Amino acid sequence: RKKCAQFSENPLFTNVIIGLIVVNAILVGLETYSFFINRFHHWFLIADKILLWIFTFEILIRLIGSKSIGSFFKDPWNLFDFVIVASGHLLVGGHYVTVLRILRVLRVLRAISVIPSLRKMVNALIKTIPSMGTIMLLLGIFFYIYAVIGTMMFSSIAPEHFGSLHDSLLTLFQVITLESWASGVMRPILVSEPSSWWYFVTFILAGSFVIVNLFVGVVVGNVEE
Amino acid sequence: RKKCAQFSENPLFTNVIIGLIVVNAILVGLETYSFFINRFHHWFLIADKILLWIFTFEILIRLIGSKSIGSFFKDPWNLFDFVIVASGHLLVGGHYVTVLRILRVLRVLRAISVIPSLRKMVNALIKTIPSMGTIMLLLGIFFYIYAVIGTMMFSSIAPEHFGSLHDSLLTLFQVITLESWASGVMRPILVSEPSSWWYFVTFILAGSFVIVNLFVGVVVGNVEE
Amino acid sequence: RKKCAQFSENPLFTNVIIGLIVVNAILVGLETYSFFINRFHHWFLIADKILLWIFTFEILIRLIGSKSIGSFFKDPWNLFDFVIVASGHLLVGGHYVTVLRILRVLRVLRAISVIPSLRKMVNALIKTIPSMGTIMLLLGIFFYIYAVIGTMMFSSIAPEHFGSLHDSLLTLFQVITLESWASGVMRPILVSEPSSWWYFVTFILAGSFVIVNLFVGVVVGNVEE
Amino acid sequence: RKKCAQFSENPLFTNVIIGLIVVNAILVGLETYSFFINRFHHWFLIADKILLWIFTFEILIRLIGSKSIGSFFKDPWNLFDFVIVASGHLLVGGHYVTVLRILRVLRVLRAISVIPSLRKMVNALIKTIPSMGTIMLLLGIFFYIYAVIGTMMFSSIAPEHFGSLHDSLLTLFQVITLESWASGVMRPILVSEPSSWWYFVTFILAGSFVIVNLFVGVVVGNVEE
Ligand code: NA
Ligand code: NA
Repeated sequence: RKKCAQFSENPLFTNVIIGLIVVNAILVGLETYSFFINRFHHWFLIADKILLWIFTFEILIRLIGSKSIGSFFKDPWNLFDFVIVASGHLLVGGHYVTVLRILRVLRVLRAISVIPSLRKMVNALIKTIPSMGTIMLLLGIFFYIYAVIGTMMFSSIAPEHFGSLHDSLLTLFQVITLESWASGVMRPILVSEPSSWWYFVTFILAGSFVIVNLFVGVVVGNVEE
Repeated sequence: RKKCAQFSENPLFTNVIIGLIVVNAILVGLETYSFFINRFHHWFLIADKILLWIFTFEILIRLIGSKSIGSFFKDPWNLFDFVIVASGHLLVGGHYVTVLRILRVLRVLRAISVIPSLRKMVNALIKTIPSMGTIMLLLGIFFYIYAVIGTMMFSSIAPEHFGSLHDSLLTLFQVITLESWASGVMRPILVSEPSSWWYFVTFILAGSFVIVNLFVGVVVGNVEE
Repeated sequence: RKKCAQFSENPLFTNVIIGLIVVNAILVGLETYSFFINRFHHWFLIADKILLWIFTFEILIRLIGSKSIGSFFKDPWNLFDFVIVASGHLLVGGHYVTVLRILRVLRVLRAISVIPSLRKMVNALIKTIPSMGTIMLLLGIFFYIYAVIGTMMFSSIAPEHFGSLHDSLLTLFQVITLESWASGVMRPILVSEPSSWWYFVTFILAGSFVIVNLFVGVVVGNVEE
Repeated sequence: RKKCAQFSENPLFTNVIIGLIVVNAILVGLETYSFFINRFHHWFLIADKILLWIFTFEILIRLIGSKSIGSFFKDPWNLFDFVIVASGHLLVGGHYVTVLRILRVLRVLRAISVIPSLRKMVNALIKTIPSMGTIMLLLGIFFYIYAVIGTMMFSSIAPEHFGSLHDSLLTLFQVITLESWASGVMRPILVSEPSSWWYFVTFILAGSFVIVNLFVGVVVGNVEE
């Protein structure tokens, strides 16, 4: 156990793993080019198998080197590493080709769990999420009410944007990012319902007011830290 | 009176009401899908009646449980709850179908008045509005002057955007959100009036400068608190 | 002199002037509707004459009431009021119809010089401009270099966006506001010059980096005050 | 050596050089207008030669006036000045016409190295870049994973946006600037893959969350200074 612990804390060990994650990242990138995947399909499969087994051994070493199995899985990053690698073994077979390809891409995310500075930063980013809980709930209620009203009013006029409740929610997300909200969404509706400008203007004013306050909360929270 | 006060302060009472507001929210959501409204139209009407009467009793209990009718209506949230529920009874009849449907959706807003953390947050958001009064007046004057000049200059060239003063105000709101301001609004006008770029550029520069200062005011105000 | 000074400091005097500026604003707004201008053209002319003479007397009273003519014109807002009103008299005649109409609109800006809280706020906004001098110069150099390079490279491929140096400057302003920069400006150019993405990506990255720092400067400056 | 040092520290010397950089800027601007370049082509070439030699002498004087050649090139701005001017001499000849034209434009950047306040500001801006290193790495990983997944899923449906890994990276940059992300990029894809909205919505939510935190870091860093 001690040997494994020493081994896993060796900076060389971490650097080799970072290097292999970079190799993994380059491989999944090259695979998207038909030039490479057509010519070297077999080699990609072999390289992927080797990488998967090295990552498996890496996690086994870190697992054996930890105080107990419980303490190892307490850290969500270790759990994340384990799930990413284990599912690569479990889903082998012809049925899960797309899932396996996406898993191979997600292995690049392991860079976050392996590089300490990235790990710290992502932990800090995730920590700010709960403090945004109430304002997210408020935004959710706000979106939901506007989506229901929008579907009620515009589902027959603009079915491509407000055809159903989930279409309306997606359209409202588009509107709050200010993407083609006037030229693409509102103006075609105004042709048949000239008074519906209030729907979009109040949504943008109130929504951006709440979102600015959300961002202000994040800024103020960070400044205080 | 005391019993009602105790009852209305019982956390279980609040949680049941929150649960019923969620049920109300799900119902108005499902109603937008023709699949559900066609099959279960009758059930939706009954569920809505039941919810309306429960909310009525809830408000009656809280009204009786309060010190006096005056102190109850002093809190604008109580007044809001009362108006939303009372108008649901008053507007019954065939004429107000759309109004009643929107009222049913607005009942979801009662989540804000019932959940204390949401109530606090919305109160805090509303409190920041008066501090923006002067800058809103400045923005208003600024928008009005540009809208009048825009209507004077472009009403014949671009009637869909600057055809009348209220069209121009809506177009200027679109321009300040930077939505298709160049590709959709300015470039077609430039074809016949090549020198009118100054109108849009100065509007965006001055407008965003004032709005950034508006946001800065909100940020600084929040930091000081 | 004393009487005029007392008179001009009377809050009633200020309120009447504010009221007349509002009337002036409503008149220039109504004039944009052909419904009103066709029917009441004559009355608009008379109302405008009366307003111009009242504003003239107002400024005369304030001028006489001030310590000296020099001290009156020291305040740029007084100079602004004087120029706006005086040019309304000087430009009378058939030749300057458009200029006179715009002057009448700009009289609404007098609300800023007359309402003390607006005056303070605009003074504060204007004071932040000099502190942005250096970064504006940097942005200017940055825009100019990109405009020259853009004209050199794309003037024959995309003459509507990069046909001349001033076209390029306007297009770069559109790009920095992120309006149709990809769908409208870059992608048509990529068709014939696939490697020119660097021009737009570096411009947006560097430009928004500088502008964010410009805004940060404004925020920090305001917080310190 | 002393004379050169005194000469190069003379404010007049700096002002003359600033003036000549402005002349250089005006010349490269005028050259983009075919009206001027066709008529005065020869004069532009002569003016450019003269400017290049004056700038060469300026750098020679500053080089001789410095304590040692090493200390002169320690300052990256001096190195920048030297490279810009030296390459103007080295690349003479018919082959490098475009490079030489761009070099002449880049000489305008010398304004930054010559005007002290600009130099300070750009130094300050560049200093904030390393502090953004970790978050840039995180953004890079995030972009790369989404680009690989996007290419895997949409390369056959939307080849103009997700045809290859580098196309996808450019499209994701467009999406994060919110430019036509819905109307131009997502909605055409939704037609054949209605469930792919999650790809764009999660990318925008997570991406803007990270970028807001990046900006917050810059703001907080500047406030602390
Ligand atoms: Na757009
Ligand atoms: Na936009």
